[in-house]
Amino acid sequence: MAPSAITPEPKEETVVGPNVLKLIQNEDAQTIDLFLRQFRCLIADLCQQFNGGHPGGAMGMAAIGLALWKYVMKYSPSNPDYFNRDRFVLSNGHTCLFQYTFLHLTGYKHMTFDQLKSYHSARYDSFAPGHPEIEHEGIEVTTGPLGQGIANAVGLAMATKHLAATYNRPGHELINNTTFCMIGDACLQEGVALEAIQLAGHWKLNNLVVMYDNNQITCDGSVDLCNTEDVNAKMRACGWDVIEIEDGCYDVEGIVKALLKAKSSTDKPTFINVHTVIGVGSKVAGDAKAHGAAFSPDGVKAVKQHFGMNPDEHFVVTDEIYNYFRDVKTRGERLEEDWKALVASYAKEYPELHEEFIKRVEGRFTEDWRSIIPAKESFPTTPTASRKSAGIICNPLAAKLKNFMVGTADLSPSVNMIWKDKVDFQHPDLKTTCGITGNYSGRYIHWGIREHAMASISNGLAAYGKGTILPITSSFFMFYIYAAPGVRMGALQNLQAIHIATHDSIGTGEDGPTHQPIALPSLYRSMPNLLYIRPCDTEETAGAFISALEAKDTPSIISLSRQNLEQYPQYSSRDGAQKGAYVFIEEEDADVTLIGVGAEMCFAVKTRDVLKEKFNIKARVVSFPCQRIFNKQSLEYKRDVLRYRSNAPRVVIEAYAVNGWERYADAGFSMATFGKSLPGKDAYKFFGFDENVIAPEVAKLVEEVKKEGIESLRGEFRDLNPVKHEH
Amino acid sequence: MAPSAITPEPKEETVVGPNVLKLIQNEDAQTIDLFLRQFRCLIADLCQQFNGGHPGGAMGMAAIGLALWKYVMKYSPSNPDYFNRDRFVLSNGHTCLFQYTFLHLTGYKHMTFDQLKSYHSARYDSFAPGHPEIEHEGIEVTTGPLGQGIANAVGLAMATKHLAATYNRPGHELINNTTFCMIGDACLQEGVALEAIQLAGHWKLNNLVVMYDNNQITCDGSVDLCNTEDVNAKMRACGWDVIEIEDGCYDVEGIVKALLKAKSSTDKPTFINVHTVIGVGSKVAGDAKAHGAAFSPDGVKAVKQHFGMNPDEHFVVTDEIYNYFRDVKTRGERLEEDWKALVASYAKEYPELHEEFIKRVEGRFTEDWRSIIPAKESFPTTPTASRKSAGIICNPLAAKLKNFMVGTADLSPSVNMIWKDKVDFQHPDLKTTCGITGNYSGRYIHWGIREHAMASISNGLAAYGKGTILPITSSFFMFYIYAAPGVRMGALQNLQAIHIATHDSIGTGEDGPTHQPIALPSLYRSMPNLLYIRPCDTEETAGAFISALEAKDTPSIISLSRQNLEQYPQYSSRDGAQKGAYVFIEEEDADVTLIGVGAEMCFAVKTRDVLKEKFNIKARVVSFPCQRIFNKQSLEYKRDVLRYRSNAPRVVIEAYAVNGWERYADAGFSMATFGKSLPGKDAYKFFGFDENVIAPEVAKLVEEVKKEGIESLRGEFRDLNPVKHEH
Repeated sequence: MAPSAITPEPKEETVVGPNVLKLIQNEDAQTIDLFLRQFRCLIADLCQQFNGGHPGGAMGMAAIGLALWKYVMKYSPSNPDYFNRDRFVLSNGHTCLFQYTFLHLTGYKHMTFDQLKSYHSARYDSFAPGHPEIEHEGIEVTTGPLGQGIANAVGLAMATKHLAATYNRPGHELINNTTFCMIGDACLQEGVALEAIQLAGHWKLNNLVVMYDNNQITCDGSVDLCNTEDVNAKMRACGWDVIEIEDGCYDVEGIVKALLKAKSSTDKPTFINVHTVIGVGSKVAGDAKAHGAAFSPDGVKAVKQHFGMNPDEHFVVTDEIYNYFRDVKTRGERLEEDWKALVASYAKEYPELHEEFIKRVEGRFTEDWRSIIPAKESFPTTPTASRKSAGIICNPLAAKLKNFMVGTADLSPSVNMIWKDKVDFQHPDLKTTCGITGNYSGRYIHWGIREHAMASISNGLAAYGKGTILPITSSFFMFYIYAAPGVRMGALQNLQAIHIATHDSIGTGEDGPTHQPIALPSLYRSMPNLLYIRPCDTEETAGAFISALEAKDTPSIISLSRQNLEQYPQYSSRDGAQKGAYVFIEEEDADVTLIGVGAEMCFAVKTRDVLKEKFNIKARVVSFPCQRIFNKQSLEYKRDVLRYRSNAPRVVIEAYAVNGWERYADAGFSMATFGKSLPGKDAYKFFGFDENVIAPEVAKLVEEVKKEGIESLRGEFRDLNPVKHEH
Repeated sequence: MAPSAITPEPKEETVVGPNVLKLIQNEDAQTIDLFLRQFRCLIADLCQQFNGGHPGGAMGMAAIGLALWKYVMKYSPSNPDYFNRDRFVLSNGHTCLFQYTFLHLTGYKHMTFDQLKSYHSARYDSFAPGHPEIEHEGIEVTTGPLGQGIANAVGLAMATKHLAATYNRPGHELINNTTFCMIGDACLQEGVALEAIQLAGHWKLNNLVVMYDNNQITCDGSVDLCNTEDVNAKMRACGWDVIEIEDGCYDVEGIVKALLKAKSSTDKPTFINVHTVIGVGSKVAGDAKAHGAAFSPDGVKAVKQHFGMNPDEHFVVTDEIYNYFRDVKTRGERLEEDWKALVASYAKEYPELHEEFIKRVEGRFTEDWRSIIPAKESFPTTPTASRKSAGIICNPLAAKLKNFMVGTADLSPSVNMIWKDKVDFQHPDLKTTCGITGNYSGRYIHWGIREHAMASISNGLAAYGKGTILPITSSFFMFYIYAAPGVRMGALQNLQAIHIATHDSIGTGEDGPTHQPIALPSLYRSMPNLLYIRPCDTEETAGAFISALEAKDTPSIISLSRQNLEQYPQYSSRDGAQKGAYVFIEEEDADVTLIGVGAEMCFAVKTRDVLKEKFNIKARVVSFPCQRIFNKQSLEYKRDVLRYRSNAPRVVIEAYAVNGWERYADAGFSMATFGKSLPGKDAYKFFGFDENVIAPEVAKLVEEVKKEGIESLRGEFRDLNPVKHEH
């Protein structure tokens, strides 16, 4: 083994055992050698059997994995959910065989050899999918889209810091786990990772260890085709400690030392730059060809020959190797037993805190959270921006529910998410120029202008323990297009979060088309397992929060206005909003149903008046804050709200692209172009959102239906907006 | 004036004049002082009149602007499109009054004082919107969403490098402009900017100068709330030169020197870290309150008192100041005249190259580009992945059309966009480990794993001159969710680009749900001014490219399969594809119309066969590659294709969320959840995409319609997929 580039002097003993360094120094070098050889041949076999997958990275990283799972990480294969376990995140998720193999070797019960072999198979019940998935034992977060995992890891490390600061007491370190994150060259190029790296340095997350599988290869060839920065200098500039490992393929001891040094860091996250060789031992070692394809039968044979293994034997893991990992399981069980004893002692010494802590561990909110939401009677009756409404509802909740961690992408003055006496999540030593400080127990997060990292790190916060932390993010709705990859990964992972998206629609005004969302709602309305909720007033905003809080497996976006909105205490209902859509103003023999949505409800209500006064047309109004929730209602309810098979056409009014509303409406008054820089009211007028423009168009439609019958509308959605401003 | 932190020794004279340093040293200090005072008071007045806008940044940056527009930049207010002009990008676009005011002072004809005063007004015809917009004189790109502008600037600088390397000849430097980009604290936090910064350093874009308005303030307070990195060290690690200016509010000479030094950089982009004070001179100077709100009448009064101006006078620009800028216009005209003379001389010496150059300046393609696209007869007839089809069509075009700059987010082996003899865009000195080199005349771009920067920098490439460069990007379709903010900004700016999005739908297979797009098409189908085209075979892929190439003001996404697709030479048609949808298989008295889309066309065709054989049901098939293009066809055509008012229901078959198809279909066989990691064929089967599952469901629908009449389908879209796997 080559010496590592550093001579670390770990200052504290690791929980894995006081003698971990001696342990590895005394380890039979031949066992380690055999392990590395078998592991690498196994990876080659696993990819070859179905002629696909990603062998190269997993092979290159074998020594890192050994250092982690055998020597450094504290975890319990018998209980993958042991609460104070170290978290491991594979940000370069395509190398998942790396992780799956260690899960198998250390004895995770689902990861049988048979399951390990199901990688890339057609088995519907595989626990070894093409990228790690949170549903499965031993997987902390679903990764794959590059850059996401390292952002998740920052969130996991924040969660530790936060819970530790909140619940640890002298002699009772309930929470002190480390988050280890493996990244590849790609993760150092993705913007979301670069944002997360800045934040981890800023927050001095000394419990975060990022291991860089520095093989200098990506799909296109060598990394220097597109990246020639000095990465160590850059990480240091971002506030990280840096350790180099020169022979990352074989120097297990060096890696263990580096990991121990990283764990003992007092004030910085650590970046371990581990130089490896992709596909080490194969004919394509160090080449992009080793990245994303099986080696071919001959190639696998060559790997085995290189490692002195029998080329005719496949999937070899000898008893010596299984025995080598045998202690991990009992060690893990002991770790958890010790932890439980610690918690029991804590329960005696701090009974109230213990009760709260257990509530957090179990992910429960304060039982009476619904009663914290103010009653309708207390809400403003004069025009109020729904971003203000959100503050009225959310801030009392955030003050009382410790699960809430509320943050903003630098829009505190705009999004109204600050509650009285909020404390910022910050390193306690931070002295800012503006004088605002905080500590790790704080629950208000300044994300900076980093919408993507905000969403992706929040996934890490939410993944620490189900319900332990409920991340609430906030920004202008338009900038959730930056956050979209993170929001999507939250939905995919069934991670609850609430995204407060203010300044929606063209009503946001002067900032112009760059800030006015038109198409974005279509993305979020069609995204599986996500609630996009657009309340029309304060009462509906209350309903939106209740829906979002009840959706324990689902993230929500609550879409809010910058501008003041008419309040409709006589019509609006939080219960109705929680059904996705409901009758807002009933009219028994209506000629038309107007669907009002969020900030544009005012146009539906005013159009109704004009239709009555000027056209002698009777209109009923449906409020429709959330399509996905409505879809879940009974067929009877849905038909009742939308007056299925009545002769009254249904017209939706919303200042977005109409795509998707065709399911619920026969016609739409909507946007066909990007917006325009004008004061909000004038922007609406410019694009035809005016009851005196809308009503005549609706009247024409009603006229046509009366003449030609409602059948004439089948299969041909009508775009009623006569204003077709080309941008 | 405080001395600047550097003592630059510019090595070359600037084109602005050999004596620019003497010019400023001899300048009446009182004029500069008067200018700074008037400028800052004017900004305060402009925000106050409508009680809104962003005054602080613009006021802080006054000295930087003066250095640029008066002393350093080469441009011609008389002809904002002068081809070799320096490009200026305001990445912190909310400070647009800064730029508008200089456009006014230097004599851009549209930016009258009256127009300047229209900022934040309700005027529909304003040239002074809330963020800079490309439509207007003197604005190179639309900015506002933070981080985009600096990425655009990288693209503009690349364009210069590329055109210079391609067309400049000794004694004939046709193209040698500099790109100046102004950024704020936020742009150094957004991931897209961090990606672009890496790339600019990698490519050694020494013609790029980024000026950092370092006021250490964002909306939430001081920047150290969320960013405490060592930015200079970080920029150096990324391959940039760094210059510090300590007194950025007043040190005009220091800034000019720094800009000249930056312009003379031979091998690196330059980062000028200019320390300023937001809202300098106001009561809220240096405070977040100066960022995004007017100062109030009293606050404006205080600004004027601070600067020794009359508080009762508003919008003051004295003749002395106008006179001070008077030389800029004639200087610009002379610059352009000199350039024209140079081009004329070039025409004589290099007539062929000149002809090609002019074609590029005018943004024309080779006239016969359509004939380069292979004929249907030459296409494969056996199953072929449409990502391969795209290569068959695009690569011959890319080889011949010099406008094409084709790049990939590190997926060269997967996206098939490499043509024979392609040369990489790289710094000529770059020696890579894998041996691939290039030079600035190269037209193939390794973007790295940076989808967002790829799209946003491409906007800069496209904005250099209309049609001069046609950027073609490529990645997996799923990762255009990372690129979405950039793709959107291209659509908003009418910038042509082609995005090659491979591995679409669940057919992409084993990589699993993280890599399988479900909701993303909804975003792009509803995005204004964007073509999302999903061809079903090679012939339709030809149609897709023709549509995309003809759309001179519109970006396109061509959505392609990883897996092999049946070819339909007997049915498919490039002409049909160019209409958005067309009849694929006609059937006169059809019971049902099946809409096939892209990679899922095979299910439509096979379902038709099963319906015939097993259910005695006659189905016609419509191919529907692009909704937006179809929408533009005549009503007659659309009704003909979709059989408007026939009794045959229409069923769309696509492995995406169905949202939006309700406009064209009565029922859909689609996806309601995220995907699953399985081989592509098995993933389809798992989610019910199988003619033997689809056909019975369609048959039931046809049965119902025969019984209850087609009217029964009005207003209640049917989801036919019986498989409802919850993820």
